[in-house]
Amino acid sequence: MQRYFIHQNADENQRFFIKDENDVHHIKNVMRNSVGNQIIVTFNDEKVYECQITQIEEGLIEVSLTKQLETETELPLDITVCSGLIKADKYEWLVQKATELGANHFIATEMERSVVKLNSNKVTKKLQRWEKIIKEAAEQSYRLTIPTIDYVSNLKQIYDRINEYDYVLIAYEDAAKRGEKSTLKQLIKQFNNYDRVLVIFGPEGGLSEKEINMFTNKAYQVGLGPRILRAETAPLYFLSAVSFEKDLTG
Amino acid sequence: MQRYFIHQNADENQRFFIKDENDVHHIKNVMRNSVGNQIIVTFNDEKVYECQITQIEEGLIEVSLTKQLETETELPLDITVCSGLIKADKYEWLVQKATELGANHFIATEMERSVVKLNSNKVTKKLQRWEKIIKEAAEQSYRLTIPTIDYVSNLKQIYDRINEYDYVLIAYEDAAKRGEKSTLKQLIKQFNNYDRVLVIFGPEGGLSEKEINMFTNKAYQVGLGPRILRAETAPLYFLSAVSFEKDLTG
Repeated sequence: MQRYFIHQNADENQRFFIKDENDVHHIKNVMRNSVGNQIIVTFNDEKVYECQITQIEEGLIEVSLTKQLETETELPLDITVCSGLIKADKYEWLVQKATELGANHFIATEMERSVVKLNSNKVTKKLQRWEKIIKEAAEQSYRLTIPTIDYVSNLKQIYDRINEYDYVLIAYEDAAKRGEKSTLKQLIKQFNNYDRVLVIFGPEGGLSEKEINMFTNKAYQVGLGPRILRAETAPLYFLSAVSFEKDLTG
Repeated sequence: MQRYFIHQNADENQRFFIKDENDVHHIKNVMRNSVGNQIIVTFNDEKVYECQITQIEEGLIEVSLTKQLETETELPLDITVCSGLIKADKYEWLVQKATELGANHFIATEMERSVVKLNSNKVTKKLQRWEKIIKEAAEQSYRLTIPTIDYVSNLKQIYDRINEYDYVLIAYEDAAKRGEKSTLKQLIKQFNNYDRVLVIFGPEGGLSEKEINMFTNKAYQVGLGPRILRAETAPLYFLSAVSFEKDLTG
């Protein structure tokens, strides 16, 4: 069942409104709900409730909380996926699938070998488009939070913020070519709950030597297995590996 | 560097021809190679060589073998990804990325909840299109083999072949919803090199109860982490998990 986000904390004694036009459209017209139907809502405090629809109006759905659902769908750590700008459709796939797979934050930035550029007057519109894709993927995959997305114009701005993170990794294609196959696994096993992890991925042409060297002694260069992965695939490998190690038991 | 496949065994004493028109175009026109340039070729026996271009003609490139490269880019087991038919662009994306991630075989089949159908007179053309995507992804990701792809009209045909596999898994969405989080990890840790593993994934609407029940006692129902993954994402999670466990050390 489709889930919807309400950006307030849960309160069983209160009624809430869903006003986002995409959600209202989905509830009313796509799923054809009526008053009395149940929908599932995720609140800002990450509580998830079955809710009953109490009113349907133009542009507005009112709900009351029926039953809390126990659910933990978030990864136990905070992952930021930083990608060099790649072709538009590929990046949209990436943020959609990486949201399904648990990423918490996205940063897009122009890198030396980015074929694609983003004019500053187009950034806002692009971010809005990406936010819409991310929100919808978060709802469909039962996330408890909606990943954030940001754009910075160059990698130096990322470098200036690396102290915000407990770990910084660079997915370096050459590491795969050189047969590097232990760093990623060792690191993922070391990660603790609530760690803030930044992973940097290059654009289609890969990271340049200058970009790699910028992070010498600040970031771990990791191979993502022996096969060369495309720019939009690599983050999905990383997130799946983290989930396999941290979400699954056995 | 782009790699190319030649469907013969390597022989350092022989010259070989590349005749595939897409490859010839790529070598001549896209990469603008001349006689004397080096390209990398993967042979049928999974040997990989640096080769020198000795002749360039219309529709044909002749090469001689220069130096063998040591490289292991295949997963140590044989994985078949069986998917219910999903929307065309999503399936093309799936086979491309699953090839990057190491899948060995694809089977597409119509399932109860498949929104998409495939008329028998369109199967051949579809397979050719998918094969082209897979081949190109195999070259780009440095695979030593090109994954195969097949279409069968219904799941019963898959059921009739399950004895060909050492393990059969069904990625069951309800398992995720019920919080099942150990079976996949335990199984992947058990897999031995050369094991033949079949994993069945549902279409957008998921597998039906009837389809799940068909495989009772024949297949393991596995959850792929706590988040709901789309039909085209789920196989990538599985393959990444296998690679993390089997390709990486530490």
